[in-house]
Amino acid sequence: MRAVDIIRKKRFGGELTESEIGFLIAGLVNGTIPDYQISAWAMAVCYMGMTDKETAALTMAMANSGDTVDLSPIAGIKVDKHSTGGVGDKTTLIVAPLVAACGVPVAKMSGRGLGHTGGTIDKLESIPGFRTELVRDDFFAQVDGIGVAVIGQSGNIAPADKKLYALRDVTATVESIPLIASSVMSKKIAAGADAILLDVKTGDGAFMKTPEDAAKLASAMVAIGSQVGRRTVAVISDMDQPLGRTIGNALEVREAVEVLRGEGPEDLREVSLVLASHMLVLGGVAEDTESARKRLETAISSGEALRKFAAFVAAQGGDPGIVDDLSRLPPSPPSFARNFREGGGSCWESRPKPSAWPP
Amino acid sequence: MRAVDIIRKKRFGGELTESEIGFLIAGLVNGTIPDYQISAWAMAVCYMGMTDKETAALTMAMANSGDTVDLSPIAGIKVDKHSTGGVGDKTTLIVAPLVAACGVPVAKMSGRGLGHTGGTIDKLESIPGFRTELVRDDFFAQVDGIGVAVIGQSGNIAPADKKLYALRDVTATVESIPLIASSVMSKKIAAGADAILLDVKTGDGAFMKTPEDAAKLASAMVAIGSQVGRRTVAVISDMDQPLGRTIGNALEVREAVEVLRGEGPEDLREVSLVLASHMLVLGGVAEDTESARKRLETAISSGEALRKFAAFVAAQGGDPGIVDDLSRLPPSPPSFARNFREGGGSCWESRPKPSAWPP
Repeated sequence: MRAVDIIRKKRFGGELTESEIGFLIAGLVNGTIPDYQISAWAMAVCYMGMTDKETAALTMAMANSGDTVDLSPIAGIKVDKHSTGGVGDKTTLIVAPLVAACGVPVAKMSGRGLGHTGGTIDKLESIPGFRTELVRDDFFAQVDGIGVAVIGQSGNIAPADKKLYALRDVTATVESIPLIASSVMSKKIAAGADAILLDVKTGDGAFMKTPEDAAKLASAMVAIGSQVGRRTVAVISDMDQPLGRTIGNALEVREAVEVLRGEGPEDLREVSLVLASHMLVLGGVAEDTESARKRLETAISSGEALRKFAAFVAAQGGDPGIVDDLSRLPPSPPSFARNFREGGGSCWESRPKPSAWPP
Repeated sequence: MRAVDIIRKKRFGGELTESEIGFLIAGLVNGTIPDYQISAWAMAVCYMGMTDKETAALTMAMANSGDTVDLSPIAGIKVDKHSTGGVGDKTTLIVAPLVAACGVPVAKMSGRGLGHTGGTIDKLESIPGFRTELVRDDFFAQVDGIGVAVIGQSGNIAPADKKLYALRDVTATVESIPLIASSVMSKKIAAGADAILLDVKTGDGAFMKTPEDAAKLASAMVAIGSQVGRRTVAVISDMDQPLGRTIGNALEVREAVEVLRGEGPEDLREVSLVLASHMLVLGGVAEDTESARKRLETAISSGEALRKFAAFVAAQGGDPGIVDDLSRLPPSPPSFARNFREGGGSCWESRPKPSAWPP
C-alpha cells in the first residue's frame, strides 16, 4: 500500500477502505507517512468529502491510536456530552450534577480552554480547593458514590487526532465536516462513553455559522455514532449571542449555581434542560424528553440538583459553601467582565491551538 | 504574509497575487515554508485551478528561482522547442539541424531520459565521440559558427520546479494543467529562449490522453508565453502510436538521419516538418508556415540539412561519417528492438523520476 495511491484515489472521488484509512493514520502517528502526504490527502477530503463508512473508519482509527478509557467498571449507561464550543457556554457545570441527580452516571473528562475563554476544567478550578486531577480508582469510586466526577483530560487520548488537527490548522483544512466530525467523535469514543450527546452551536459566535452547516455536522457525527455502535444524539443550539450573561471562569460558575437554584438566565436554563433531557433518555432513566424534563425540573425545584453540585464540589476538594454564598468565589479578572459588558469577547476557540506546531 | 492564509485563499477559489505566489515559491526553495503547506496548496490548485495571471506568476517565480541563461550574445531570435514527451520521439535530432540549415540559431539544452526511453542527450551520446558537455564560450561560439549546438542541461535551472515536481509526484498532484504548464515554461524561460515552440503529445502513449486535455495544456502554455513576453506556439500531435519505427538511442539517431536524407518514416517526417515550419516563422526567417515548409523541403532535398547535421556532430566531437554509413552507429540493446517489435515499450517518462525524493 502506498500513500500516494490513497491520496490519488481520494483526489478523484473514490471511497477509501478501512484498511487504507488505517494505513494513513498509523503512518501519521508513527511518522512513516510524511506530513506533506497527509496534508494533501486532507485537502482532497475538503473537496471530495468522505462517505459515512470512511468517516467512521477514520474516527475509529484515531480513537484507537492512543489510550482508551474503559468505563465498564461503573454501573449504568455512561453518557458523555460534548459542545462544539461557544462563548459563555457553561452548560457542563449545570448538566453534570443535574443528570447525576436524576440517576445518570457522569464520568467526564473535560478540556481546558486556550485563547480567550476557559474550558470546563478552568471554570471548575476557580472554585477554591477544587482538584481536577484524580487517580483512576478515586475517579471511579466518586462516580459510584455520588454519581458524578469531572476531571481534566489526561493520558494519550487520540494522538492521531492531535497530530492531524495540528496539520489541518496550518494547511487551511480545518473546515471539513467529516474531518471535524471524526475529530470530535474519536476523542469521545476513546474517553469511553457508551452514549454521546452533542451540542452543536451555530451562529456568529460558533464555528458553524449557519444552521445548515450545523445540521450537516450534527448529522455526520450522529452517523458516526450509528456506524460504530455508540448511541449519539445531537442538539443544535444558537450561539449568535453568548449563552447566559457572563464570561469568565468564576462568573460562569456563579451563573451555573444560579440555574441549579432555579434562578439564572432563561436561555442558559433552557439549553441546559434540553441537553439534560436527552441525556436522561440516552442514559435509560426516562422514556422520552418530556418526562425527562419534568424529572429535571423537579430536581431543580426540590434542591436535589444543587445538593448534587455541592456534593460533587466537596468530593473533589472544593468548597461546597459556594452554593449558599457565591461571594466565596474569587472575582473574575476585570477584563473578562469588561469585554463582555462592552459586547466584546465574541472570539472563542473550540479547542486548543496546537502551540507545538510546527515542531 | 502567512502560507496558511495563501492556501486558504486558493482553497476557497481566490486569485493569488504575484507576491503571494512569489512568497510560496521562495519559501519552498529556501525551506521556510514546510512541504506540508506546499502540498496542501498544490492539491487546492488541482481543484480550483489558476488564472492565466497566477500561472504566469508561478512560471516566472520558478524560472527565476535558480540560474538563468542569457543567450543574448547569440545573434537572432533563439527559438527553443519542447515536447511533452512520447515514445520514439526523436524530432529534436531532426529539427535542430534542419532549422539551423534555414538560418534559425539553435542553442539548446536538453534533458536525459530516465526510465524506459532515452532523452535527446542520451540519443546524441550514442554517436561515437559525441560530447554533450561544452563550456559556455564554446557553446556560444559553436552556435555562432554553425548555427546549432545541443548540450545537456547543467547548472541550477529552475530548482523550485524540481522541488515542486518532486513533491507533486508523491502527493497525487501531478495532473493539473496550470502546474504542468508552468513547470514546462519555467525551464524554457530559464534556459533563455526568446520564442518557444511546444509539441504537445496526445493519445495513449502521452501524458495528455485526450485531444481536449492536450488543447487545454497547449492553451495554458501559450497564455503563459503571452503574459511573460515570450512568443509561444503549440502544436498538438498524436502519440497513439510511437513516432517513427524505432525506439532505442542509436536506432533513433539512425532514423533521424534517414529523415534528413529525405527518407525515413512518413509520420516522423511530417511531424518534424510541421514543428520546423513553426520554428522558422517564430525565428523570423519565414513569413508563414507554407513558405517555411517549402524552404525546409528544399533544405532536405538539397542535402543542406544532412550536411548541417554532420557539421553539428563533428563540432561536438562525434563521428560525422555516420551520415553516410549508418553501420558506424552502435547496435541498440536488443531489448529495445525486441520490445518495439513486440509492440511493447509504450511506457515512457516525460521527465526524470525524482529519485532523491523523499529525501
